[in-house]
Amino acid sequence: MQPVCLVIGAGAGIGGNVGKRFAREGYHAVLCRRSDEEGLKRLVEAIRSEGGAATGKLLNAVEDGSIENLVEQVETDIGPIEVVAYNLGAQIGDRALEATTPKMFEMGWRLATFGLYRVASKVCPRMEQRGKGTLIVTSATAAMRGNKGQHSHAAAMGGRRMLCQTLNAQYAPKGIHVIHVLIDGAVDAPDTLGKMLGPERFQELRETRGAADGLMQPEKIADTYWHLAQQHRSAWTHEIDLRSFSDLPWWNH
Amino acid sequence: MQPVCLVIGAGAGIGGNVGKRFAREGYHAVLCRRSDEEGLKRLVEAIRSEGGAATGKLLNAVEDGSIENLVEQVETDIGPIEVVAYNLGAQIGDRALEATTPKMFEMGWRLATFGLYRVASKVCPRMEQRGKGTLIVTSATAAMRGNKGQHSHAAAMGGRRMLCQTLNAQYAPKGIHVIHVLIDGAVDAPDTLGKMLGPERFQELRETRGAADGLMQPEKIADTYWHLAQQHRSAWTHEIDLRSFSDLPWWNH
Amino acid sequence: MQPVCLVIGAGAGIGGNVGKRFAREGYHAVLCRRSDEEGLKRLVEAIRSEGGAATGKLLNAVEDGSIENLVEQVETDIGPIEVVAYNLGAQIGDRALEATTPKMFEMGWRLATFGLYRVASKVCPRMEQRGKGTLIVTSATAAMRGNKGQHSHAAAMGGRRMLCQTLNAQYAPKGIHVIHVLIDGAVDAPDTLGKMLGPERFQELRETRGAADGLMQPEKIADTYWHLAQQHRSAWTHEIDLRSFSDLPWWNH
Amino acid sequence: MQPVCLVIGAGAGIGGNVGKRFAREGYHAVLCRRSDEEGLKRLVEAIRSEGGAATGKLLNAVEDGSIENLVEQVETDIGPIEVVAYNLGAQIGDRALEATTPKMFEMGWRLATFGLYRVASKVCPRMEQRGKGTLIVTSATAAMRGNKGQHSHAAAMGGRRMLCQTLNAQYAPKGIHVIHVLIDGAVDAPDTLGKMLGPERFQELRETRGAADGLMQPEKIADTYWHLAQQHRSAWTHEIDLRSFSDLPWWNH
Repeated sequence: MQPVCLVIGAGAGIGGNVGKRFAREGYHAVLCRRSDEEGLKRLVEAIRSEGGAATGKLLNAVEDGSIENLVEQVETDIGPIEVVAYNLGAQIGDRALEATTPKMFEMGWRLATFGLYRVASKVCPRMEQRGKGTLIVTSATAAMRGNKGQHSHAAAMGGRRMLCQTLNAQYAPKGIHVIHVLIDGAVDAPDTLGKMLGPERFQELRETRGAADGLMQPEKIADTYWHLAQQHRSAWTHEIDLRSFSDLPWWNH
Repeated sequence: MQPVCLVIGAGAGIGGNVGKRFAREGYHAVLCRRSDEEGLKRLVEAIRSEGGAATGKLLNAVEDGSIENLVEQVETDIGPIEVVAYNLGAQIGDRALEATTPKMFEMGWRLATFGLYRVASKVCPRMEQRGKGTLIVTSATAAMRGNKGQHSHAAAMGGRRMLCQTLNAQYAPKGIHVIHVLIDGAVDAPDTLGKMLGPERFQELRETRGAADGLMQPEKIADTYWHLAQQHRSAWTHEIDLRSFSDLPWWNH
Repeated sequence: MQPVCLVIGAGAGIGGNVGKRFAREGYHAVLCRRSDEEGLKRLVEAIRSEGGAATGKLLNAVEDGSIENLVEQVETDIGPIEVVAYNLGAQIGDRALEATTPKMFEMGWRLATFGLYRVASKVCPRMEQRGKGTLIVTSATAAMRGNKGQHSHAAAMGGRRMLCQTLNAQYAPKGIHVIHVLIDGAVDAPDTLGKMLGPERFQELRETRGAADGLMQPEKIADTYWHLAQQHRSAWTHEIDLRSFSDLPWWNH
Repeated sequence: MQPVCLVIGAGAGIGGNVGKRFAREGYHAVLCRRSDEEGLKRLVEAIRSEGGAATGKLLNAVEDGSIENLVEQVETDIGPIEVVAYNLGAQIGDRALEATTPKMFEMGWRLATFGLYRVASKVCPRMEQRGKGTLIVTSATAAMRGNKGQHSHAAAMGGRRMLCQTLNAQYAPKGIHVIHVLIDGAVDAPDTLGKMLGPERFQELRETRGAADGLMQPEKIADTYWHLAQQHRSAWTHEIDLRSFSDLPWWNH
């Protein structure tokens, strides 16, 4: 049975490219996203056309039992999950407190924090039994500092980062590598940035900033995810940041 | 009408002592806690016997509408809330991931993160209209790093810290002072530490470490809360840590 | 003998106001600065005219033996140093790497880092023998993040912050309170900000931003220094930040 | 002309292995260390015997002009410096403040902070003209927190980290990649750890902890250095940490 790389949050950005990269290296990529069945099929076929193994699954990550069932199914039907890329975003744009409803605030947590707890709860014990596994968590600038309008997002990502640390504290000595990857810039991703900006502004941004490598290219980010998953256990990274060369890191003005 | 200092999480530790201190300085202390009506009465009477104004309220902070109604009532019946001390803890002791149920994980978030969002959502717009207000948030070491066994607590407190930053980002320019107070040590508090340890071990700890000022004295912590609430708006603290002189800060070994 | 509050870096900003405040509370303020004997005299006389005790000393802090002799003299001639406010700045304005000479780079370190090591080396052992003492260190945003043009300043302040931590690690258990105070904004200080901007721009800034409390008022900062020096040893702060309500904290954009 | 990878601090640990790895990938490795000419020769010959290009140089990095001359010579005689691995340590073991002489304190800064400023001052302008370059800086836990006994080391490494940030702020937009690599554990390196422990304790540690991958293997660290130097400029890392799977990160207890 091929080892599985399970990507939760697999659109045309980081998630999809991580799936492609790991498939190219011999993993069966299991790609999950909430909607856009067409886009998911295209992604799976793109991998298969290169000779890779891939399966697509629609997943409503906030639904009770959804993640739990997914893990069971994949382990039973496809193969042992060796790598999880937890890649669900929770950005809802800048919203003042009075425009952030309890539902929005909770949704951020369900996607960014609770979902990670749920997948870890199902996957880590299996990885522990096998003595190895990798859990790569895509995170955001909002995990490090709370900007104006980011009430839901920052609270959710701050929780995500601390959870990565507690997971690492319990599981690293068991051979499970947990990595918090701080994506500290805008990614050239039609499914997230593209939807936030709308097609015209997104196209314009790609032609200007993107052409000059000022947008993060998701296939280049996937190179670093692959490296992290390959690190020898005597020299593991737990926290790493990534941004374009022309972007200011979160700590600078 | 006397200005109100609303303490959410008012036991015999930090919360109760903050209430006493602010009452002594002329505030009406509104003290809320989930249970132990007897203890709450004793606290209210202790303040009144000193000539201070105090009201006690049982509050189930995780119940829908509870915090929202509380804020309405207090503003209508008692006076304008000038200071909130948000002091709900969410420590459940060290628990491995497999011993941390979804319910526990969620409860941490409801108490530590979501409750703060809820109280801020109700109180900050009123403070903004009045052009001033103070929101002092008791936080924990787990907001800074995730130790083994702290999955629920650290994720919740990491969210709390980021939320303090986003609240500050929106409201500081409106004259509302939001402060994240990192309590980085054990507090001499019968209602929290006392219950975790049990009466005998708690008594022993008080007689040894406590006698040597190795347990944080809550009335001394309250001195710093009072100072923070008095800071001139040209020199506001947003983040501060506190621990006993004999304790290692969270970053040291 | 009156206890001494030794202020290293005592101009008309934070240092001078800390001296005034501690003198008002019964300390003998020993005020040191490199130059401007006239300004120093005025400061001493202002304190004396209020009935306080003060001594002024010109001090070239980067000169071999200068700080060491100062400590000896003060202890012998004036009284035991109970509080040190180490307040030497090392900001030289924004300079690209090629405009930062080795001398400038070294000077930053001598003022910000090495000077603190030197004063601590002389003062801490005496405080340790007496079982108490306070070392309040004024620090800057550059201790937390390195912005463009801040090569000398940030390297120096980053060193200062870590040194505060190692001093605290060794001396807190001996009853010596070391505090790193992050001044995260512009202070209304003619001797530093005033000189950087020139008299006209400084006056303009005072009339606009300063009038709206957007410049940090040094006498208000001194209130927090006083509070910190009064904290009970069961609840000591090691790190605290301060800025105007209308300023963004260093972590926000 | 082959591009050069200049390693400052090239013993049998990280530095030597970085040299080997980059030589294997087509760089001319220029290996510098203060002493042990024999060890240096062996390292150069090991690289040459694999078909790689290498040059060894004894370098007293704290001597006036030494680093500056080295850069000139290498650029003139060997080739353009594309990568610098700045790998000088400054650990002197745990020493109380009273056992830390001014000379020791200064030496830490000269090695860890000032040396980096000096090499950057010579190399970055050349890289800027060429529109590219990589500066990988080996750093230590002491850059993040100041433990007891680490006065010299922590102040020096805290300065190093902030300097990396200011260098990045100025040079990243020019195509120069500056990376702060936090080595957060013990490296299996005879020239540093070996000397600190003595041959017997070092051998014992290797046989126990090392055999279980509890010592960081320098050739595995070099894999990550290589990856970092290969990152596409749209997705650059500025800060990364590394430690053995069985070691606690610096933030955990």
